[in-house]
Amino acid sequence: MEQVVSIAKRLVAESSRVLATRATDAQVQAMRQAFPGAIVSGSGGTILVIPSDEAPVTDLSKAHVLVVCAGTSDLPVVEEAMLTLRSMSVPAVRITDVGIAGLHRLLPHVEALQRASAIVCVAGMEAALPSVVGGLVACPVFGVPTSVGYGTHFGGVTALLGMLNSCASNVSTVNIDNGFGAAYCAALVCHQIERRLKE
Amino acid sequence: MEQVVSIAKRLVAESSRVLATRATDAQVQAMRQAFPGAIVSGSGGTILVIPSDEAPVTDLSKAHVLVVCAGTSDLPVVEEAMLTLRSMSVPAVRITDVGIAGLHRLLPHVEALQRASAIVCVAGMEAALPSVVGGLVACPVFGVPTSVGYGTHFGGVTALLGMLNSCASNVSTVNIDNGFGAAYCAALVCHQIERRLKE
Amino acid sequence: MEQVVSIAKRLVAESSRVLATRATDAQVQAMRQAFPGAIVSGSGGTILVIPSDEAPVTDLSKAHVLVVCAGTSDLPVVEEAMLTLRSMSVPAVRITDVGIAGLHRLLPHVEALQRASAIVCVAGMEAALPSVVGGLVACPVFGVPTSVGYGTHFGGVTALLGMLNSCASNVSTVNIDNGFGAAYCAALVCHQIERRLKE
Amino acid sequence: MEQVVSIAKRLVAESSRVLATRATDAQVQAMRQAFPGAIVSGSGGTILVIPSDEAPVTDLSKAHVLVVCAGTSDLPVVEEAMLTLRSMSVPAVRITDVGIAGLHRLLPHVEALQRASAIVCVAGMEAALPSVVGGLVACPVFGVPTSVGYGTHFGGVTALLGMLNSCASNVSTVNIDNGFGAAYCAALVCHQIERRLKE
Amino acid sequence: MEQVVSIAKRLVAESSRVLATRATDAQVQAMRQAFPGAIVSGSGGTILVIPSDEAPVTDLSKAHVLVVCAGTSDLPVVEEAMLTLRSMSVPAVRITDVGIAGLHRLLPHVEALQRASAIVCVAGMEAALPSVVGGLVACPVFGVPTSVGYGTHFGGVTALLGMLNSCASNVSTVNIDNGFGAAYCAALVCHQIERRLKE
Amino acid sequence: MEQVVSIAKRLVAESSRVLATRATDAQVQAMRQAFPGAIVSGSGGTILVIPSDEAPVTDLSKAHVLVVCAGTSDLPVVEEAMLTLRSMSVPAVRITDVGIAGLHRLLPHVEALQRASAIVCVAGMEAALPSVVGGLVACPVFGVPTSVGYGTHFGGVTALLGMLNSCASNVSTVNIDNGFGAAYCAALVCHQIERRLKE
Amino acid sequence: MEQVVSIAKRLVAESSRVLATRATDAQVQAMRQAFPGAIVSGSGGTILVIPSDEAPVTDLSKAHVLVVCAGTSDLPVVEEAMLTLRSMSVPAVRITDVGIAGLHRLLPHVEALQRASAIVCVAGMEAALPSVVGGLVACPVFGVPTSVGYGTHFGGVTALLGMLNSCASNVSTVNIDNGFGAAYCAALVCHQIERRLKE
Amino acid sequence: MEQVVSIAKRLVAESSRVLATRATDAQVQAMRQAFPGAIVSGSGGTILVIPSDEAPVTDLSKAHVLVVCAGTSDLPVVEEAMLTLRSMSVPAVRITDVGIAGLHRLLPHVEALQRASAIVCVAGMEAALPSVVGGLVACPVFGVPTSVGYGTHFGGVTALLGMLNSCASNVSTVNIDNGFGAAYCAALVCHQIERRLKE
Repeated sequence: MEQVVSIAKRLVAESSRVLATRATDAQVQAMRQAFPGAIVSGSGGTILVIPSDEAPVTDLSKAHVLVVCAGTSDLPVVEEAMLTLRSMSVPAVRITDVGIAGLHRLLPHVEALQRASAIVCVAGMEAALPSVVGGLVACPVFGVPTSVGYGTHFGGVTALLGMLNSCASNVSTVNIDNGFGAAYCAALVCHQIERRLKE
Repeated sequence: MEQVVSIAKRLVAESSRVLATRATDAQVQAMRQAFPGAIVSGSGGTILVIPSDEAPVTDLSKAHVLVVCAGTSDLPVVEEAMLTLRSMSVPAVRITDVGIAGLHRLLPHVEALQRASAIVCVAGMEAALPSVVGGLVACPVFGVPTSVGYGTHFGGVTALLGMLNSCASNVSTVNIDNGFGAAYCAALVCHQIERRLKE
Repeated sequence: MEQVVSIAKRLVAESSRVLATRATDAQVQAMRQAFPGAIVSGSGGTILVIPSDEAPVTDLSKAHVLVVCAGTSDLPVVEEAMLTLRSMSVPAVRITDVGIAGLHRLLPHVEALQRASAIVCVAGMEAALPSVVGGLVACPVFGVPTSVGYGTHFGGVTALLGMLNSCASNVSTVNIDNGFGAAYCAALVCHQIERRLKE
Repeated sequence: MEQVVSIAKRLVAESSRVLATRATDAQVQAMRQAFPGAIVSGSGGTILVIPSDEAPVTDLSKAHVLVVCAGTSDLPVVEEAMLTLRSMSVPAVRITDVGIAGLHRLLPHVEALQRASAIVCVAGMEAALPSVVGGLVACPVFGVPTSVGYGTHFGGVTALLGMLNSCASNVSTVNIDNGFGAAYCAALVCHQIERRLKE
Repeated sequence: MEQVVSIAKRLVAESSRVLATRATDAQVQAMRQAFPGAIVSGSGGTILVIPSDEAPVTDLSKAHVLVVCAGTSDLPVVEEAMLTLRSMSVPAVRITDVGIAGLHRLLPHVEALQRASAIVCVAGMEAALPSVVGGLVACPVFGVPTSVGYGTHFGGVTALLGMLNSCASNVSTVNIDNGFGAAYCAALVCHQIERRLKE
Repeated sequence: MEQVVSIAKRLVAESSRVLATRATDAQVQAMRQAFPGAIVSGSGGTILVIPSDEAPVTDLSKAHVLVVCAGTSDLPVVEEAMLTLRSMSVPAVRITDVGIAGLHRLLPHVEALQRASAIVCVAGMEAALPSVVGGLVACPVFGVPTSVGYGTHFGGVTALLGMLNSCASNVSTVNIDNGFGAAYCAALVCHQIERRLKE
Repeated sequence: MEQVVSIAKRLVAESSRVLATRATDAQVQAMRQAFPGAIVSGSGGTILVIPSDEAPVTDLSKAHVLVVCAGTSDLPVVEEAMLTLRSMSVPAVRITDVGIAGLHRLLPHVEALQRASAIVCVAGMEAALPSVVGGLVACPVFGVPTSVGYGTHFGGVTALLGMLNSCASNVSTVNIDNGFGAAYCAALVCHQIERRLKE
Repeated sequence: MEQVVSIAKRLVAESSRVLATRATDAQVQAMRQAFPGAIVSGSGGTILVIPSDEAPVTDLSKAHVLVVCAGTSDLPVVEEAMLTLRSMSVPAVRITDVGIAGLHRLLPHVEALQRASAIVCVAGMEAALPSVVGGLVACPVFGVPTSVGYGTHFGGVTALLGMLNSCASNVSTVNIDNGFGAAYCAALVCHQIERRLKE
């Protein structure tokens, strides 16, 4: 545990922030004590240490990311993605509970989806959400299959396969439950936009 | 080949009809010669021998089935289902090309879907169509995963897994490319309705 | 836990009933306290909250469902199916302990099976029961593969594959242990019958 | 091809017989020419070279084997088993077309099944036949899963899994389509009986 | 727990014995209390209740079974097989620790192996023992793949596949860790011999 | 074939271009005849019909994509990606033969890689190239696992799994051999940059 | 084809030799014409171009490799290994037809096996040979699983799993049918010995 | 527990040392008490009992092994390999934290890698390290896939597949997490060198 905290302290010294995923409760606790007042933690074991005076970037007129999921059981992965985006200073908005068996909940968000520069789409079960979302937008969609399901869900493999075989052309995929990876890719899209705007 | 034709002749003598699936081109040819004027054949090797004066039942005020698919490559399975329904004297309508990455094509059919007593939903790739359709109706949806896809589609396994993990509660599934089986189940729903109406 | 109870209270207020599956012991306990006198719970974590004065519908002259299983270890899934049917006001009867290695136990029930409008067939191990039952009836059979088995049973995958490859034409399948889904489909068959009878 | 024939000639010289399975059409042809009048060949590429004056052993009062299958598509594997038994001088009887979705075809054979010393049970699709047969007899049942099926049959894997998870206790299994192996084991049961009877 | 004991009491009343496998420690304990002086239990949760005055049949001049395994970690499955054979009144001998990476330990047992009427061969890891043993004898070998191994052993699947692909012709296989099933089959070989000897 | 050509003609009329992948040789031939002078085709069955006077966009000072692969056998997928990018008017450069077992071939390209706005990385075998490339750049890397390999390569599954488990954070993945999908996603990154630059 | 030959000519110019595996018949033919008198080709598509005056190294007093297999169907992989060793100037001897179901064929070779510095062990089916061989020697054994088998052999996966789970400690494995890779590793053992002897 | 200690005592008496892997904490504790002063234990349950006055062999001018891994989570497997090498009296050096997504950490070690007679390469995730290392050296590389990863890492299967499909020719593989096996093979390479040097 001390080792985790000391590594974190070194990283914070170097770059003023550290992001950890899949931390145990005890590790979360130890980090809270080590970085009082400077920690943001999510469900599912994600921890972000960030300067306490650094507010989230919320200006949606800039390149930003939408994080979308179908149901409450996917929320820990959504939080991992949101904290990753915050640690990379990319504005992000979450839209939850837009499962495809109830299209009426998704349709009011179409305009917001179309303004995003990249979308992180988190889904378990048959993971059809990225196909529907992908068909509505013209930006890259990074799918995160989650391990939410049972029986033939095979710990998320079914959701992964659904995303890999999406009938929407703009969907790529990361490992199961890897909210960090999808958010990281989506943030880099925004960074590339900002880099070009500065040139 | 002669054996196939003679078995067919025996079955036609017994029940005035015979349905065969996955026939080879040569078998289709032999059957056409054996039953001139009495044959209906579909793509994908489905053959139905039926009395030449027996018109399809088309009265949609009776219990009937809708057969839905996402794209042209699923059509052979759709035809297998349609001929199965005709051989069982159940009225049926097909709706094709309603892929979920283009919701605008599906939505005009909602009312028709809701009038059906059972739905056969044929889909390859990520097979999300049954989830969307299932969410719109209150009758049983029998999903047929097709082998249409490549790479991690694994000959239809991905489509099957998607259907088994559907977030819609009213979806059950049959074997890959088994349009016959799904149509058979859907026809029995209509038969059960007719049986009760006659009581 | 409070969240679960408050969601349940909202749903009961809306539709006078709520059905939950795979609840933990603690969740069952909390629900019992929240809905005293109005709860029916089964083994395996199924809970049904239903008006305390609403008796089960037991009139077998109406469209009804038979729930069949091979052995005592499949009973929790059978109960999930039975409570689903009760929550949907569909008459249902269970027949248990009719494994195919002892055909003499199954044969006395043939007549009852043939009166049902739909059958839910729950089976683990090699899951051959739906094939035998399907061969005896003319209504749709919804198979529920269970995770009962060991070694190459692979948590129910073997039972699922057996059902998908059934030599009976009237068998469709749902996810492993998904008694809710099969019962939901079977109930819709009865609902469709009732809807037509009312027209 | 010459190599195959010359190996066969050496083996015939040594033990007066040779059994080959999975031979190509050309190999069958070459063997017919090499051993005129002394060959017995079955469908599916099984060839037995045996002295032309050696009649099959057909005395069912001796220890003997029953070879059972569900349908015509399993017949090549049945023939492989029958020729294996003949090459080992074990009396054998075949019963075909006793699929479990039509129990009335199986039941008339119960007495014959119970007289056998060992049973070879050949089945594709969900392969439930060994479970039903096993429940009716008190001798070992050697199951042969066949590659007959499609989609999730996975070239016979589903049939194999069904047999390995049989609810009958007296079923063991060999590789997919390995009619030779199951017949070989069944023949050894008869050989062991004869050995003891001679002591 | 009471239910287990009462079922056992009923079975003992019917046939004077009961065999249970995969019992929990608590169930073993309860059974010991319910049947004092009449119980034989093995490691791995196998329990045999048998009349306390019924000695094991040990006359190896009669048809008997050899139970062979490669190492100490396979012993619980060996015990399950041995108790099964005892419950069926079949003489049996165990040979343990004859792994194929040390052939010198196996070779002294060849003569004993060749006297058996059937062999149960228990093996984990790559499960090559049945191939070597099968090559040395002329009786049926019933292989039991065990879940002993790690990584790509996949809980016994590798051992099972090794047995199904054995280069020895006289090997058939049962489910992973199913010492009961293999012993049951082997015992039936002996029963068939005894039945013929009595005729 | 006529159907393919007529669909293509309709699409060209609508949007002046059409891209097809996985075309057969005969389809390629028919398209060449239908669109003389206006066709660009690649190996592996990719066809792009594009106005004959529309030159490729080659200005690398604009947002552009690098398409990287390890060896000559991956080239058809690279061509599919390149033609996709051309059809979407995105400048693109290919770098081939930079396998990781010879790092000296990759290192000279680092600067070019770092100038790209998105990278398509095509790799078969163990597919480690995206990890190495991903570690060198700060833009999203879209991996395309190819079916190049044998034995345990499982038609590209091994390459896919390698990419999904990449130790580089900026790698996402598409289906096996789906050069179109990865290029489509990469092109959208450039489109999003251009859209923001125009605002 | 010309491309293959021209690449081969460049490689021969550089290092006086070229080794190719999995060549088609046409490629073998083209290479024979391009390098008359200098070619050695094996079954299974392996080609070695080598100076016509370079005799194989056959001095078994030097570090050398034994290549062992169980049956004739593994010979193409054995030849691939032998030619690889010759191209690397490492003395090598082949021992074939030593399947473990006939131990008497293997035992005469023990002394030769123990003199080798490394062993390549080629085996299909259950692939138990490396375990038996590994238990007899004190040098590294490189296993090559072959695709020889059927049904649950899964194209060599079963043989591979058998080798990975070998109860002998000195066995490592390469990809299915990769005789080149195992021979390459074994040759490097000899090269390392020679390097040290020269120091 | 006593059994483990007594077996260990017997083995130490025979050969003065004993190596155990995958020991539980309790077993490690019992061994420490049984062999005070003579034990070396590593993380991950590896224990080596060795004469307390036997120093590790550290002379790198002799044939020696390098043990390489990519990250801290692979260290228990590295320690298992290191203790195996020590128990076999082979000099060994470990290099850790040389992941391929940061090539700058690996490159300084090239010279040391090239001096080794054999390399053990431990890697989880996509396990590309052996390919990169293999491309830099001319000795055999024994890969150990580790179970480090999540989701589609499948407990190490992905890492194993990556190694089996390595584009470097000198990589062979052992079972997942089997640091012992790879080190044993690597040590035998050194033993073979020493044996030849002594001749």
